[in-house]
Amino acid sequence: MMQTAKHIDATPALLIDLPQVRRNIAKLAHYARDHRIKVRPHTKTHKSKFMAGLQIEAGAIGLTAAKVGEAEIMANVSPDILIAYPASDPARAYRMAELAKRVTVRVALDSSEAIRRVGETARSAGSTVGLLVDLDIGFNRTGVATPAASLDLARLISRTKGLRLDGIFFYPGHVWSIGEAQTNELDRIDAILAESIALWSQGGLKAEIVSGGSTPTAYRSHLIPHQTEIRPGTSIYNDMNTARAGFCTLDECAARIVSTVVSTTVPEKAVIDAGTKTLTSDRNVTLPESGHGHVVEYPAAKITRLSEEHGELDVSACDVRPKLGEQVQVIPNHICPCVNLQDEVWLRTEDGAIRPLRVDTRGKLT
Amino acid sequence: MMQTAKHIDATPALLIDLPQVRRNIAKLAHYARDHRIKVRPHTKTHKSKFMAGLQIEAGAIGLTAAKVGEAEIMANVSPDILIAYPASDPARAYRMAELAKRVTVRVALDSSEAIRRVGETARSAGSTVGLLVDLDIGFNRTGVATPAASLDLARLISRTKGLRLDGIFFYPGHVWSIGEAQTNELDRIDAILAESIALWSQGGLKAEIVSGGSTPTAYRSHLIPHQTEIRPGTSIYNDMNTARAGFCTLDECAARIVSTVVSTTVPEKAVIDAGTKTLTSDRNVTLPESGHGHVVEYPAAKITRLSEEHGELDVSACDVRPKLGEQVQVIPNHICPCVNLQDEVWLRTEDGAIRPLRVDTRGKLT
Repeated sequence: MMQTAKHIDATPALLIDLPQVRRNIAKLAHYARDHRIKVRPHTKTHKSKFMAGLQIEAGAIGLTAAKVGEAEIMANVSPDILIAYPASDPARAYRMAELAKRVTVRVALDSSEAIRRVGETARSAGSTVGLLVDLDIGFNRTGVATPAASLDLARLISRTKGLRLDGIFFYPGHVWSIGEAQTNELDRIDAILAESIALWSQGGLKAEIVSGGSTPTAYRSHLIPHQTEIRPGTSIYNDMNTARAGFCTLDECAARIVSTVVSTTVPEKAVIDAGTKTLTSDRNVTLPESGHGHVVEYPAAKITRLSEEHGELDVSACDVRPKLGEQVQVIPNHICPCVNLQDEVWLRTEDGAIRPLRVDTRGKLT
Repeated sequence: MMQTAKHIDATPALLIDLPQVRRNIAKLAHYARDHRIKVRPHTKTHKSKFMAGLQIEAGAIGLTAAKVGEAEIMANVSPDILIAYPASDPARAYRMAELAKRVTVRVALDSSEAIRRVGETARSAGSTVGLLVDLDIGFNRTGVATPAASLDLARLISRTKGLRLDGIFFYPGHVWSIGEAQTNELDRIDAILAESIALWSQGGLKAEIVSGGSTPTAYRSHLIPHQTEIRPGTSIYNDMNTARAGFCTLDECAARIVSTVVSTTVPEKAVIDAGTKTLTSDRNVTLPESGHGHVVEYPAAKITRLSEEHGELDVSACDVRPKLGEQVQVIPNHICPCVNLQDEVWLRTEDGAIRPLRVDTRGKLT
């Protein structure tokens, strides 16, 4: 589809405000330049070559992907791709080794067995894959537990053919606090990184890259001075997770679900055409009982229940109530999985025109 | 892709056991024949023309869709499509009216305004759309509240050009109980239907179709004798929602997520490559704290937390623990939105071969 339009006819549709996207990208780029931190945005949020291109134009040093299928496509936008995922099974190892023949491929691993597997595959393919040691700094999902364990893996990588030791990887996914609580946690994380880097150094190894960062910690990255680069994903669009936690304003939420009121028959309710197949079931991280997103035109409405294709709004607190057929915009709790439900989103450009944008890596699960 | 395989290489992948699908379809068809109830399966679960074709072969009298985009595609499988959704906005009304030129289109509406809109559009297009009056029997989402209100809408439909009065529509989405509690609720629902049908009859109107049914009520449909047809969706595949509520066995769960263990580094955990972008965040309906699905090979493991691409298993209760690189099968809480995340699923046929199957109506949101 190449048409442009003045408004959305068929709903639900994910509408992205391009000027706001540019502001969100520029804001992070500005912050990163000020604090001499590199940005390697996570493309899982937008899954779009166009958006990745804007990020590279704004100074991003490379891109992050979760899955190899995403990396293969994003390699057409940047020659430096980090797979922020413990990819070591034969299918992924093979595709990473092949991809490493044409671009720089880096991957974060957390065990000697995974390292050996990826190394053997890269060696067979005749390519070199860059490895970061995944260090668990508190999220408790993947990663080795201690700086000493990170050194053990770094040593294994440094002596494994087919691999290049790139540095340290961590993910502060548990940090959703603000203010002093966040400061204290980021201080603690930086101390772990400092200890690891020192240990590596004593062992004759260098962590060229120390890769961290999430959207909630993005603008406090200077509190983790030992990291060299950050990988925020959500910050390009933002959502009610980042807004309700205090990390962005509602205006900075650049992606909204345009939906239509399809029923107002049940008392005190309005039903919109966005359910879990549009908004997902993701609860709000810091305010799980806040409902399934924010209705921009009716801030007093609460999205109380979702079915697959129905979103039920409690409109009892609204002075004026949504009418049948009316379009409303919803800022979802978590934008990343919402984007992943759409083959195409809609981009509102500077001149007010609306045009479709393909979600290039949608559904690239492997 | 037309290849067949002996096993799944790249994960996560949704693997569907075709012999079990055939058994699930045959079981419902057999029950329906025994009780003289018609079946109009909801295609939102499988979103596949192939699966819809199997259901029609087994005696289904037509198909159900949620969105018009689904209906347009399913109209290639059956000439009788019910849109179980209050579709009345201009974009949907237009497409329904156009579709009604080539197949029988029925839609369930719950307000005079919606009826007038769809009527005007059909009249302009020169086609006829069949209407069912959506009656709220307790789910409290859409539908008029009383039999008397249903008669008012039936009268409006019967005198609106472009429309054909087809009958009554209801959705028992609140019924997840079993045994006596379910019996009592189904009795109550049937009494409401009986009252409505009698009122319509006194008004000179006939409800040719009385359409209800969900997977949890499917095999108790004989307890609602006033319904003429049922619309179960999930029963073709089943999932942990239906299994944990007691409506199917684990063996009857025909669709499973094949996933790979990608990390076992964090103590007491195993991480698989299926997160919310594969399993969705849908909690279990009757046992919300049961975790994010059932791991077939490790029933003592609990999927405690999902990120977008990570599923974290607490394996502390497992005698033998999953190993790095091992494949495991997960039965998700709710199969419908999982299918909707995949462009292609995998079908294991009677001979053990595995071949890809396109999810035809994936992402058809409008």
